[in-house]
Amino acid sequence: MEHIGMQTIKFEKPPTILETASIVGPKEAQGPMAKYFDQCIEDEFWGEKSWEKAESKFVKETVSTLISKSSISAQDIDYCFAGDLLNQCISSSFGLRELNIPFFGVFGACSTFVESMCLGSIFVGSGSAKNVLCATSSHFCSAEKQFRFPLELGNQRPPTSQWTVTGSGAAILSSSGEGPYITHITPGKIIDMGIKDANNMGAAMAPAALDTLITHFKDTGRKPSYYDAIITGDLGHIGKEILTELAETKGYNIKSNYNDCGVLMFDKETQDTHSGGSGCGCIGTIFSGYFFKQLKDRKMKRILLIATGALMNSTSTQQGESIPGIAHAISIEV
Amino acid sequence: MEHIGMQTIKFEKPPTILETASIVGPKEAQGPMAKYFDQCIEDEFWGEKSWEKAESKFVKETVSTLISKSSISAQDIDYCFAGDLLNQCISSSFGLRELNIPFFGVFGACSTFVESMCLGSIFVGSGSAKNVLCATSSHFCSAEKQFRFPLELGNQRPPTSQWTVTGSGAAILSSSGEGPYITHITPGKIIDMGIKDANNMGAAMAPAALDTLITHFKDTGRKPSYYDAIITGDLGHIGKEILTELAETKGYNIKSNYNDCGVLMFDKETQDTHSGGSGCGCIGTIFSGYFFKQLKDRKMKRILLIATGALMNSTSTQQGESIPGIAHAISIEV
Repeated sequence: MEHIGMQTIKFEKPPTILETASIVGPKEAQGPMAKYFDQCIEDEFWGEKSWEKAESKFVKETVSTLISKSSISAQDIDYCFAGDLLNQCISSSFGLRELNIPFFGVFGACSTFVESMCLGSIFVGSGSAKNVLCATSSHFCSAEKQFRFPLELGNQRPPTSQWTVTGSGAAILSSSGEGPYITHITPGKIIDMGIKDANNMGAAMAPAALDTLITHFKDTGRKPSYYDAIITGDLGHIGKEILTELAETKGYNIKSNYNDCGVLMFDKETQDTHSGGSGCGCIGTIFSGYFFKQLKDRKMKRILLIATGALMNSTSTQQGESIPGIAHAISIEV
Repeated sequence: MEHIGMQTIKFEKPPTILETASIVGPKEAQGPMAKYFDQCIEDEFWGEKSWEKAESKFVKETVSTLISKSSISAQDIDYCFAGDLLNQCISSSFGLRELNIPFFGVFGACSTFVESMCLGSIFVGSGSAKNVLCATSSHFCSAEKQFRFPLELGNQRPPTSQWTVTGSGAAILSSSGEGPYITHITPGKIIDMGIKDANNMGAAMAPAALDTLITHFKDTGRKPSYYDAIITGDLGHIGKEILTELAETKGYNIKSNYNDCGVLMFDKETQDTHSGGSGCGCIGTIFSGYFFKQLKDRKMKRILLIATGALMNSTSTQQGESIPGIAHAISIEV
């Protein structure tokens, strides 16, 4: 392990991403990425009595699928890192309470998936663990209910708003395996530019993504062109545009190889999701479903995965607070 | 770093706990531990307009005090690990948003302080960081409002209930220094014994504390008598009694050297706090205020610090769910 530059850690023995899994809900099943997920569920309740219980089931079943797909058993997983958007991260703790693996609860809002992978990779890279599990989830209905309005009200959504992805993504990191490897992590700082519009998360989080992006390049000496793909999740259409422009003003041209998981998840023309997808499950499922396979098939060889989070709640917004953003990055190479 | 037994990590280069700080509220100022804290605040709002903003101020000022007391500057702290009880951990993210240190949000309910120290110690012990900061907080008023009833209602509290500590505790872990050292960590599993009474957290969390306690002894080959003190936080009076009994049935006698931070914080006779203190700030302030000084002064040489958390929220309780518990342990030696 080597701390390089300001914020980056470089692995001498890079952990392998051994396997991933992803399960999504009905709206995601109609989107352009549907074929990449392990399973698409047609019922938002998934047979449960509440959306919260359904979200826990997404986590539980995704992790169960992941362990089945991997070559290792649950007993060989040393630690688990998980979190989600629900108050006190209940999707993760209820979804994983029967797992019987030491558990670290993580909260980074929509940055949780990459935050978990940062922490997990340090455990594996340092020899503290052989295998760790990273998991996250979100659910459109439980998130709307908690953060915005009762769904029954049928409130209008402004054009800047994003659509919380229903789904769960999970990954096993391992000390053995032939890649793709996590070679560097660049954990991010909290960046608050004073944006207060809780219906424009992309704008609130883009400055944090910019800060982590530039720090990663400075710390590693790499340029945007080093990567086959630079992927954020989930700035959405508006945040993606802001980040592209901000990066250009700082001398980094990311136009040709940059995309965002919130942009990729839904069809902008037909799915009525305004600025795109969001939620911990957005980057969680798209990385696990799509990008991991691209790396495994060597269609991509180097990606920079940056998850962004808005560290607010409905009370802080009601009390007039601005929205602090954060972004964590990992460099994944084959 | 060596993974020993089932769940424990032993440090080849144990991180030093370089410095700690603690600030508490008015009720804690009247309790038996008051003299050990850096500061006692007489106003629960601390001049802010809401309890949530006040709690953020507790975190901010505690971290500021900590950095002033330590021999290092904020720029020399590589990463920060923090979390709290408020929805989406806003006390930590708002309290630390100006800190300009890469930030990992952590959620382990009342186990958050030790969870942060587990994660931080792996970063330091592996050479990924030289210095890290671990912080947590809780606030009686913001917690009651969020988890139970509006304070204005003046609801009665059952005898099994605990009193959320108003306060923040924080520590700097460092690769250099002369101890006290974190020599082992034993992160815990989620344990759910089906207890549903949200007014009896001690009972819900005691089985998790037992599981981690026994696992720690088995993994390390140590016995209870190895430690000058075994400290949980925060099982309270009822949970402490349950853990003592449960441990005895498993062949571990901890009667002579075991105590709980929820028991230590308030005077049972005069302060009307029923089963004792609770909240992330309970073990956070008592370790930072009292036990750290005992270790520094060599009045204690070996302690096992076990923080317990109840991984539920008010929605899960309303939906009839039981309360999953968790407990993380660290062994601290001089």
